[in-house]
Amino acid sequence: MTATLQLALVLLAMGFSQGKQHNYLDQVDQLDAEAEIELSAGPSKFGSLWPLPQKVEISGVSFKLAGVSFKITDAKQSSAGQSCSLLQDAYRRYYDYLFAGAKRQEPGKGRQRLGGPAGLSELQVLITSPDSGCDGYPSVKSDESYELKVDQPYAVLKAPTVWGALHGLETFSQLVYEDEYGAKSINSTTISDFPRFAHRGILLDSSRHFLPIKVILANLETMAMNKFNVFHWHIVDDQSFPYMSRTFPQLSQQGAYHPYTHVYTPADVKMVIEFGRLRGIRVVPEFDTPGHTQSWGKGQPDLLTPCYSGSKPSGSFGPVNPILNTTYEFMTWFFKEISTVFPDAYVHLGGDEVDFSCWKSNPDIQKFMAEQGFGQDYSKLESFYIQKLLDIVATTQKGYMIWQEVFDNGVKLKADTVVNVWINNAANNELGKVTAAGFPTILSAPWYLDYISYGQDWQRYYKVEPLSFNGTEAQKKLVIGGEACLWGEYVDATNLTPRLWPRASAVAERLWSAKDVTDVNDAYNRLSVHRCRMVERGIPAQPLFSSYCPHEYKGI
Amino acid sequence: MTATLQLALVLLAMGFSQGKQHNYLDQVDQLDAEAEIELSAGPSKFGSLWPLPQKVEISGVSFKLAGVSFKITDAKQSSAGQSCSLLQDAYRRYYDYLFAGAKRQEPGKGRQRLGGPAGLSELQVLITSPDSGCDGYPSVKSDESYELKVDQPYAVLKAPTVWGALHGLETFSQLVYEDEYGAKSINSTTISDFPRFAHRGILLDSSRHFLPIKVILANLETMAMNKFNVFHWHIVDDQSFPYMSRTFPQLSQQGAYHPYTHVYTPADVKMVIEFGRLRGIRVVPEFDTPGHTQSWGKGQPDLLTPCYSGSKPSGSFGPVNPILNTTYEFMTWFFKEISTVFPDAYVHLGGDEVDFSCWKSNPDIQKFMAEQGFGQDYSKLESFYIQKLLDIVATTQKGYMIWQEVFDNGVKLKADTVVNVWINNAANNELGKVTAAGFPTILSAPWYLDYISYGQDWQRYYKVEPLSFNGTEAQKKLVIGGEACLWGEYVDATNLTPRLWPRASAVAERLWSAKDVTDVNDAYNRLSVHRCRMVERGIPAQPLFSSYCPHEYKGI
Repeated sequence: MTATLQLALVLLAMGFSQGKQHNYLDQVDQLDAEAEIELSAGPSKFGSLWPLPQKVEISGVSFKLAGVSFKITDAKQSSAGQSCSLLQDAYRRYYDYLFAGAKRQEPGKGRQRLGGPAGLSELQVLITSPDSGCDGYPSVKSDESYELKVDQPYAVLKAPTVWGALHGLETFSQLVYEDEYGAKSINSTTISDFPRFAHRGILLDSSRHFLPIKVILANLETMAMNKFNVFHWHIVDDQSFPYMSRTFPQLSQQGAYHPYTHVYTPADVKMVIEFGRLRGIRVVPEFDTPGHTQSWGKGQPDLLTPCYSGSKPSGSFGPVNPILNTTYEFMTWFFKEISTVFPDAYVHLGGDEVDFSCWKSNPDIQKFMAEQGFGQDYSKLESFYIQKLLDIVATTQKGYMIWQEVFDNGVKLKADTVVNVWINNAANNELGKVTAAGFPTILSAPWYLDYISYGQDWQRYYKVEPLSFNGTEAQKKLVIGGEACLWGEYVDATNLTPRLWPRASAVAERLWSAKDVTDVNDAYNRLSVHRCRMVERGIPAQPLFSSYCPHEYKGI
Repeated sequence: MTATLQLALVLLAMGFSQGKQHNYLDQVDQLDAEAEIELSAGPSKFGSLWPLPQKVEISGVSFKLAGVSFKITDAKQSSAGQSCSLLQDAYRRYYDYLFAGAKRQEPGKGRQRLGGPAGLSELQVLITSPDSGCDGYPSVKSDESYELKVDQPYAVLKAPTVWGALHGLETFSQLVYEDEYGAKSINSTTISDFPRFAHRGILLDSSRHFLPIKVILANLETMAMNKFNVFHWHIVDDQSFPYMSRTFPQLSQQGAYHPYTHVYTPADVKMVIEFGRLRGIRVVPEFDTPGHTQSWGKGQPDLLTPCYSGSKPSGSFGPVNPILNTTYEFMTWFFKEISTVFPDAYVHLGGDEVDFSCWKSNPDIQKFMAEQGFGQDYSKLESFYIQKLLDIVATTQKGYMIWQEVFDNGVKLKADTVVNVWINNAANNELGKVTAAGFPTILSAPWYLDYISYGQDWQRYYKVEPLSFNGTEAQKKLVIGGEACLWGEYVDATNLTPRLWPRASAVAERLWSAKDVTDVNDAYNRLSVHRCRMVERGIPAQPLFSSYCPHEYKGI
């Protein structure tokens, strides 16, 4: 039996049954206009690699890996060695994924050492750049490339920085499979890999529902399995303010769903950031203003605009009050704190969906509008506020990301401001405009994963081409990536993880792999096995279609 | 503070925040034509009762329950006492739900006994019928009614049979809440309750994905929390045959996804049945033929029709071969086994979606059609098969349920055959026809919960009125209930439970509560707390909308 055939059989054994679908589909009210492709199941020549590396050569020669003796080691010339706890931690993590349950033994002790002529006993990791990045944080400029050569006597993973090495370790783990006797095997392979886009994010929303830290960490872990590198933490919103501020503790004391059980303490936030860092993931917090701030108002008097009903305050409140000095004093202190708590070079400032009706009702605001000569154009007032906010945040040495409305309203932006395109009906047009104005941009619009529908919607996410808009090469270079967004109206700890995975995996491959990786059928075959791997690693990633995993999820 | 106010505060504290919804809803491609009702959140005067009992009176007087001393006991006159392990088991279960974590102590030992003038120390359970049902199985004719009186010195739950008592225990547990000091409290209450429909089912599909026993049991447990009483186990289908038959072990040996890890052993099946019985739930297995049988063919040669391509067999197979005597011999032995393994009075025989193309291609079938004088009407061949199958099953003393096509095709049916209406575009018409012909029927059509969509689709399920079709009172009496169906194409252990609950809870109330219980707003308020109760009991029931539970789900 050839090694290639072995691989094929193993993949087959992992189970693809694409039987006829119940044809009661007729009765679905809301079928996709765009029909999903009929997929034929079978092993991909790329095994279960996900996202697909830029260059892959897998030979038919296979080696066995022995859990008792296999080692991941630092190459002698590596610029990051034993002292790099980020790497040592990753070695342990991937050893565990590779040999879950198997007990490591010192060679010579007890059982005979496997390996021998057809065994692979070691993966050497070589960081080549003098600045390995080990003790720092990943950034949009990080070099995430790596090269992986699996051959005897040992495999070598070479990367300029630890960030590339982390991706390479994941790739290595994806190359390992079980032969028909359950022996861990890997084929002789050469991979050269780097991401197509630098910013590959997941947005989670911890305001509409509080997400326990355990859930956030599990999803960071899963992000790493999919080579995502940005956690866009939409941490607060109208519904609740779970961020515990040292400067303004009343914000969560009054604004969280519960001041003790439904908050993120400074220690929690630190843990999320460090857990992400160890996996090459940036944590970009979003503090969205001036809209989406109802929960802020509970613990910060006078921050929000009092709405009027006729000539009297109605008792309800609108967006942040843009006409008071106290507002800007608050923002100065608040974002000073944020800039120290979150190490990333960027903070997301929101700026979307500002409702003008409350501002319009308030006589003080009306007077201010007149004084400023804004007429009845409340978007000018919005810009006035945002302009001042951006100036405040600029003093903290942070870059900022904003939702597209801020750009649309003509606010003056720093050149490195990242514009987040989210409105789906004219996203290509918007990408054209934003990049024509010279701003870097990230695309979220086609990837609102909170919108669920019957069937294999991952295919729709997969088929998006972020650079299909009309624009010059220079414009296209400004599209630095995209984000899959899982807004929180209908998700919490009970259903977030299976709803996000593997649907977000489709976005992961689109943002990482080469532009021409568009074979949905091949993607289905790799993704099916990739999702079973996530399940085997304890993540309840939901199924793509009728089939099974060798090891089903153990929870309920 | 009055007791009623206390209750209100507690419910408020359980958290309803219905903030403004992100209005990016514009960009959802597939919005419901029928807009969902805007709901206002707040406590219901019926607390968190779900499904709502037929008659409820809750007074403002509250009592405290002390975990250390509270007892659920058999009333002296009860026809089912200490020897009824079903009840004793239920007492333990509900004690645990009521006082999770609290340690029971003998009165007098250690801490002071709570209770006293404002305490409730006991729930007495009184089974009034000489035949309590304790050692039997529930049936469609079981009396599920109960009366519950919560008052001092003790509460009394009175029911003709244990089946009603089980529902009453659930209701009692739903009346208990925590006051602001965390003390378990219950208000003086009088309830008289019975189900509107006798058959209240959940269909789960263990063929398209294998469902580990743990998942099935967790959902039976949740069914009991929602007063469902039928588990319609769609156990095999085209994709896999996980049922391990003693008579034909090759069926699962060859037809399961995996012959050891993805099968239900006789012991597993027994466990499911007993777990269900202890919760008043019938287990009705479905063995669907002649279509949906691809997996049967793997372990039973000649069972399926060989399809032809021109004049030669193509190598693929169609529905069960209806022209061979061996087919009927097989079915005789197979259903003889099924009739002994599954104690319920009914077995579901499927009969839906028979594809005629393979039969048409086969020359032997063509010849048989001619001999029988069926012309080109293959539905006559289908009826020929089903007729013989029904005769076989009738000899096992089982009643049968069938999907509506069997009725539509004019197959002669026993008078007690239950017709399962599932095609949604003319369900009312079908209900009219089936009941006009005098057959009992259950409605599944509007409750295909595998069809997911963005938003609060539970409201759509909730608004269904099963008796809205045109028909006489006698016809309407023939509608014995309904089922929520969660077909398995896109669900397995990773996502089944949150996808089913609380969406199926909407169906539960429709099938249990009085016809005029249609206030969606009140339902929202009760269901929100009911879903948090399911979460607290360890079930990952997903959220209805932005909000929180005091105790969020502990898993991922």
